[in-house]
Amino acid sequence: MTVPTSSGTRTPVAAAQLGERVQDVLEDFLAIQGRVLDALGEELGPLLDAASELLRGGKRLRAAFSYWGWRGAGGSDCAEIVRAAAALELFHDAALIHDDVMDDSDTRRGMPAAHRRFATLHRSNRWAGRPHEYGVASAILLGDLCLCWSDELLATSGVAPDRLSEGRRVFDMMRTQLMGGQYLDMLEQARADTSVERARRVVRFKTAKYTVEHPLLLGGRLAGADRDLLAAYTDYGLPLGEAYQLRDDVLGVFGDPSETGKPAGDDLREGKRTVLVATALERADAAQAAAVRRHLGDPALDGDGLAALRQILVDTGAVRDVEARIDQLTEQAIVACRSAPLAPPADDALCELAVRSTARRG
Amino acid sequence: MTVPTSSGTRTPVAAAQLGERVQDVLEDFLAIQGRVLDALGEELGPLLDAASELLRGGKRLRAAFSYWGWRGAGGSDCAEIVRAAAALELFHDAALIHDDVMDDSDTRRGMPAAHRRFATLHRSNRWAGRPHEYGVASAILLGDLCLCWSDELLATSGVAPDRLSEGRRVFDMMRTQLMGGQYLDMLEQARADTSVERARRVVRFKTAKYTVEHPLLLGGRLAGADRDLLAAYTDYGLPLGEAYQLRDDVLGVFGDPSETGKPAGDDLREGKRTVLVATALERADAAQAAAVRRHLGDPALDGDGLAALRQILVDTGAVRDVEARIDQLTEQAIVACRSAPLAPPADDALCELAVRSTARRG
Repeated sequence: MTVPTSSGTRTPVAAAQLGERVQDVLEDFLAIQGRVLDALGEELGPLLDAASELLRGGKRLRAAFSYWGWRGAGGSDCAEIVRAAAALELFHDAALIHDDVMDDSDTRRGMPAAHRRFATLHRSNRWAGRPHEYGVASAILLGDLCLCWSDELLATSGVAPDRLSEGRRVFDMMRTQLMGGQYLDMLEQARADTSVERARRVVRFKTAKYTVEHPLLLGGRLAGADRDLLAAYTDYGLPLGEAYQLRDDVLGVFGDPSETGKPAGDDLREGKRTVLVATALERADAAQAAAVRRHLGDPALDGDGLAALRQILVDTGAVRDVEARIDQLTEQAIVACRSAPLAPPADDALCELAVRSTARRG
Repeated sequence: MTVPTSSGTRTPVAAAQLGERVQDVLEDFLAIQGRVLDALGEELGPLLDAASELLRGGKRLRAAFSYWGWRGAGGSDCAEIVRAAAALELFHDAALIHDDVMDDSDTRRGMPAAHRRFATLHRSNRWAGRPHEYGVASAILLGDLCLCWSDELLATSGVAPDRLSEGRRVFDMMRTQLMGGQYLDMLEQARADTSVERARRVVRFKTAKYTVEHPLLLGGRLAGADRDLLAAYTDYGLPLGEAYQLRDDVLGVFGDPSETGKPAGDDLREGKRTVLVATALERADAAQAAAVRRHLGDPALDGDGLAALRQILVDTGAVRDVEARIDQLTEQAIVACRSAPLAPPADDALCELAVRSTARRG
């Protein structure tokens, strides 16, 4: 897909540079928290190390959306918004750490998941009790720490108090809706009778709003955006967020592990009821539906089973349909972006982000 | 122990009344969050129900300390401080929900622990997957929600922004130190070689500061307390917090389940390295030490094993010593309270709280 820009040329958005600035904020902030923990005892080092290493691997999309939400509302480039944007990355890490415990995932961003890391620490020290349980408990605490730290970083971002309390309304809504969405996601897996419609509801709350719309609205509200601009952010954010999740669903089945950072087919092994899977099930004939039901959610799913599921996702046309839907949603987001009252260069930056977040391979 | 009051009579501190006001704030706040969750789907009802029921059972000590920390600094009785105080109770609930997952506890406040409750929901609906894992994942999400909500409630308490950001410094420190302290607690259990000194370090960060000192300092800072008063709060809070935890340790072994809300001997079954246990181990002869090592941390500890451990805790003089230490620490707190520059009636209220939190039976 080509990205039309207001100047007719592809705008070089300093995404890498923003990523580095976010990284610097996070490292400085974690160093301060490290000193707080050090006062309790040096044995707390592994908590901070785990947080630091995990934070290095993110795509920083939520930080980028909140930054450009601020710039689009006329906010100037400054340290305050980079701190607020970094707070979203800390929040996201908390969610991932707990998510990996809930799904019992082995890896995250190509490294062992936090609970696996602490289980290994336990095992290598030959401590009493069970390594897995030590790992889970440590990861719960580490996620709690990141959750509290994200909110501390936002509160101490330096944004003026009245704007901050406007922004917090989005932040608070985002957190409650994300966790509610995660519960629904889990409930759909447990009920094991997903419809496309119900899978979409999970996507809407667990990803679409959380990944794109809420970060944009947070940046916008912190910068004092008016009602029209906030509405435009929603018009851009909801379709793009849905497209982002659909891309994630496709990568979860067909992605290259060296780029996604997680084993191929993990979503299928966990029995995730994605829109991709729900679409295939709605179109499957009896034999295909039986095969999906047999393999989906099988923790021991092997290469043959994975290949069979992939073939069904292709043969039913589910992959083709989902890809078409990603293109359509991305286009919709770009149109919304182009007609929004955005301060430049946020218009070009957000169009580029629309493509980057849906054409990605990992 | 008698409580000397400045007026020479026992002051009727409206503890019950404060408790009711905190309860009202929490119910109103949860009703608002319920509407946020309802927008996602009615299936989220059980999350809110679990939070509401758990919140009904608390002793509200942290709310009381923060309220009287505010009043002692000259703050007037108002809705804002009750909201801020209620935020601590929500935070505490989050910590308990996650703690019960980490310890795999059956009950909390006489009711099934959150993860057990959701496991039962799973089982009774005959959903796919394992009830225990559904319960754990739900409780992790519920704890995360309460964690976020506590911070939202504090931020929207209505306390003026400059005072609020002073208060947040305590709140943030409290949260990081509590979670660090919980990690240390778990580490001590895993290492299984506790000294009294190391058990005290855990108590200091996990309970003493968290239960008394930080709530008092939060209330004080929100009300603009000066340095001398804050120092007095620490002089009162640290010994009292330690005494509170020692009482908890004794109740964990000798308490009446109908008053403590948890099965007798649960701490011993979990292998908790309390100061009480560490003191007994330091004084035990070879036979006693061997018996402690055999029973401590045994999930199947029965009535006979429990009776044997109790006898050793008494025979080594550990119980007598811990009781003497509770009296001494409580006295120290009361002396600090009497010499502090406190606005009445906070002086009498805090003396009464010192007794109530250490002479309790549940």
